[in-house]
Amino acid sequence: MENYDVLIIGGGLAAYYSALSCRKRGLKVALIEKALLGGTGIRTGALPVKKLLDSFKGREKDRESIKLDLIKNWNKDIKSLENKIENDLLTSGVDLYFGDGEFLDEHRYSVGDNILYGKYIIIATGTEPSSIGEIEIDNEKIITHKEAIDLDNIPDKIIILGGNVEGIEFASVYANLGVEVIVVEKEKFVLMGNDEDLVKPIEDKLVENKVKIIKGIGAKEAYTDGESVKVVLEDGQVFEGDKVLVTLNRKPNFPKGIERLNILKDKTKIIVDENLRTNIEHIYAIGDINGILGMAHVAIQQGIAVSDHISKNKPVYKHYSSLPRAVYTFPEMAGAGYQEEDLIREGIDYIKGYSYFSNTWRGWAKDIEEGFVKILFHRNGKLLGIWMVGENVSEYIGPLGVLLEKNITVDDIKHNLIIHPTLWESVLDAILNAER
Amino acid sequence: MENYDVLIIGGGLAAYYSALSCRKRGLKVALIEKALLGGTGIRTGALPVKKLLDSFKGREKDRESIKLDLIKNWNKDIKSLENKIENDLLTSGVDLYFGDGEFLDEHRYSVGDNILYGKYIIIATGTEPSSIGEIEIDNEKIITHKEAIDLDNIPDKIIILGGNVEGIEFASVYANLGVEVIVVEKEKFVLMGNDEDLVKPIEDKLVENKVKIIKGIGAKEAYTDGESVKVVLEDGQVFEGDKVLVTLNRKPNFPKGIERLNILKDKTKIIVDENLRTNIEHIYAIGDINGILGMAHVAIQQGIAVSDHISKNKPVYKHYSSLPRAVYTFPEMAGAGYQEEDLIREGIDYIKGYSYFSNTWRGWAKDIEEGFVKILFHRNGKLLGIWMVGENVSEYIGPLGVLLEKNITVDDIKHNLIIHPTLWESVLDAILNAER
Repeated sequence: MENYDVLIIGGGLAAYYSALSCRKRGLKVALIEKALLGGTGIRTGALPVKKLLDSFKGREKDRESIKLDLIKNWNKDIKSLENKIENDLLTSGVDLYFGDGEFLDEHRYSVGDNILYGKYIIIATGTEPSSIGEIEIDNEKIITHKEAIDLDNIPDKIIILGGNVEGIEFASVYANLGVEVIVVEKEKFVLMGNDEDLVKPIEDKLVENKVKIIKGIGAKEAYTDGESVKVVLEDGQVFEGDKVLVTLNRKPNFPKGIERLNILKDKTKIIVDENLRTNIEHIYAIGDINGILGMAHVAIQQGIAVSDHISKNKPVYKHYSSLPRAVYTFPEMAGAGYQEEDLIREGIDYIKGYSYFSNTWRGWAKDIEEGFVKILFHRNGKLLGIWMVGENVSEYIGPLGVLLEKNITVDDIKHNLIIHPTLWESVLDAILNAER
Repeated sequence: MENYDVLIIGGGLAAYYSALSCRKRGLKVALIEKALLGGTGIRTGALPVKKLLDSFKGREKDRESIKLDLIKNWNKDIKSLENKIENDLLTSGVDLYFGDGEFLDEHRYSVGDNILYGKYIIIATGTEPSSIGEIEIDNEKIITHKEAIDLDNIPDKIIILGGNVEGIEFASVYANLGVEVIVVEKEKFVLMGNDEDLVKPIEDKLVENKVKIIKGIGAKEAYTDGESVKVVLEDGQVFEGDKVLVTLNRKPNFPKGIERLNILKDKTKIIVDENLRTNIEHIYAIGDINGILGMAHVAIQQGIAVSDHISKNKPVYKHYSSLPRAVYTFPEMAGAGYQEEDLIREGIDYIKGYSYFSNTWRGWAKDIEEGFVKILFHRNGKLLGIWMVGENVSEYIGPLGVLLEKNITVDDIKHNLIIHPTLWESVLDAILNAER
């Protein structure tokens, strides 16, 4: 039996960052991955979609050649990430075990012929797509994000169920590959939970790119019919395509043998306390499996924080009120903090300000035509939210989550220095425009 | 005689932002510009150079057509900025006066047939290039940044005196226009005052683009010789070109009639207190003319801050320890706070960390090969400086000055959320790489 300070079950982002951070703290670490390193974020979800979208930038004129380029290199590209992860882990001294393991008891986990003992155990096994209602995923015609990034099988026509971030990002990818796209969203809005001001330019661009967006009607049925697949909406409309992408539902990947532990969980998650610990004191659950927020940067932060809790008993902070978010489309949307609808719902008195990138000095230098900033602040000056729409804005909001947690005010922005000329000056402009 | 709450002398960035901010505070404002709106930053200095550099991005293959494009639109482009400034000022209710005015006394300023009375007066007249030592500027062969952005007269070969930010940015512009460039820097380093780690990739790229950089030898003489101009270095070497660009020296534009005021000044500046007031209580001096820091974003911040001092008696903060700075070249360099040499000089104990953009998830998505982050923090965790080199990094450091003023620590970055996937994650990586 091999003894470890920490066993980490899973090989996604949460597992990766917690393994590296635990090693930095001098702990002896084993990471057990049942299939391939990378997890949903890296292999089949967020990141590959971003790579596809980033590939289109500045080369929109020649999509066919982009497509061929992508197909040629895609598997090699994904493999290079897998290699990076493996290499980083091995270099830092993490022991890697591959195979379909299981819990033997609260401290022991078996994988292949090995039995591993962990003083602490971190469960980071994530979630995976699941069928919704009557619609059964067959992974061939009725697919999930896992199959949707398989570029060897780009459909001519796809129906995307769900106008959420995943659905809209894929709509953007497919539209740019020349695929005919229909998005079906049962709510009245796509990108629900996001400000209409911010969503509108993204939706307009999709429509301009010939994406058909159906809102306010759900899908009740999908079935294959020879070579094609048909989707029946709640109002009886029928659409036909080569594929249907289901984006709505996810289910937890509970590790095997978990039933041998008296661990608290429900159908969707393992339940954790404010330090990401399960009811069993030495077992943590981080990333998507704990159901807190299914976002890659949350998983990363939890992975880092949990290592400080194990090694230094530092409390795990959960600063999700300032949560930075981005939608990677054309244009991108990104920001942090409250959106206007949150403030209305919570009855918080606020002032808002807008400013257009085209109206900034750098916007002039760069010939930028689209994009804007929307800021929201309290009457006492405290900044509540900063949001941007435009090309590449996901990069511009970098430390905004940190900034908002620090309770910055409009005066902090005005009296410190925003470098000139940059698009960030539009935040200053938005404040100056808004202030009475 | 027209009565105003505030007279603003000058039409550059400091004047523009103070005029708009004073109007927001309900003050009656006149702005007096002797020639054309925009000032050094907008018309002939920082911004046009950035527009030239931004124009090269992603189209490096066809410089001749860029050049023709630029020449065709250049004057119209600059004119559009002038119009924006004029329009913003008029829309906000600022009265504009054009002409070569002068102070009559401590409250009155005449311009053309008008005599204007100001309860407060803001001097924002800036600086202009001046000759150095034996080298006399003739504005034809031996030129300054004002003539250097005149695209109708692009030289085949130029000698740039001064490897400072201005000199290096122009070297980058000219090299990209196919001009043969020699930079002469009397110190042993170009971009003096900046960390060698950060300067090296910029210098390497210039050399790769065939810019000849001479360091450690000053120029002692420059003279025209028929169609060409010759520069003699201190060691006797002689170089010949079509133009010589002098970047080193500036002199203050004192307003006419200032001798009628008992205002405290020296050869290089008007002297101000911590609230940017001269020794005459109702007269302020902002922007380059006060000699604090000749940078556009400092001028902007002073313009905004002074309006709050006049209208609300709010103290003017001067947060220059976190000063954000950028060099707009290929690649760009940008950051805020201390650089490593500052810390060594001041004897501050620090830890440093590096991380490469190519090693981030977004770097993979974007196929980024160059660029890195260098962070510096105190042993107690307080962040002292964050610096980046790479394409477009001036945009990524947006609010870093504000962030560093808020005394953030490495734990603030680790325990809050940096959005994934973005290049900003390399700041997190640099912290994780550095920490023991």
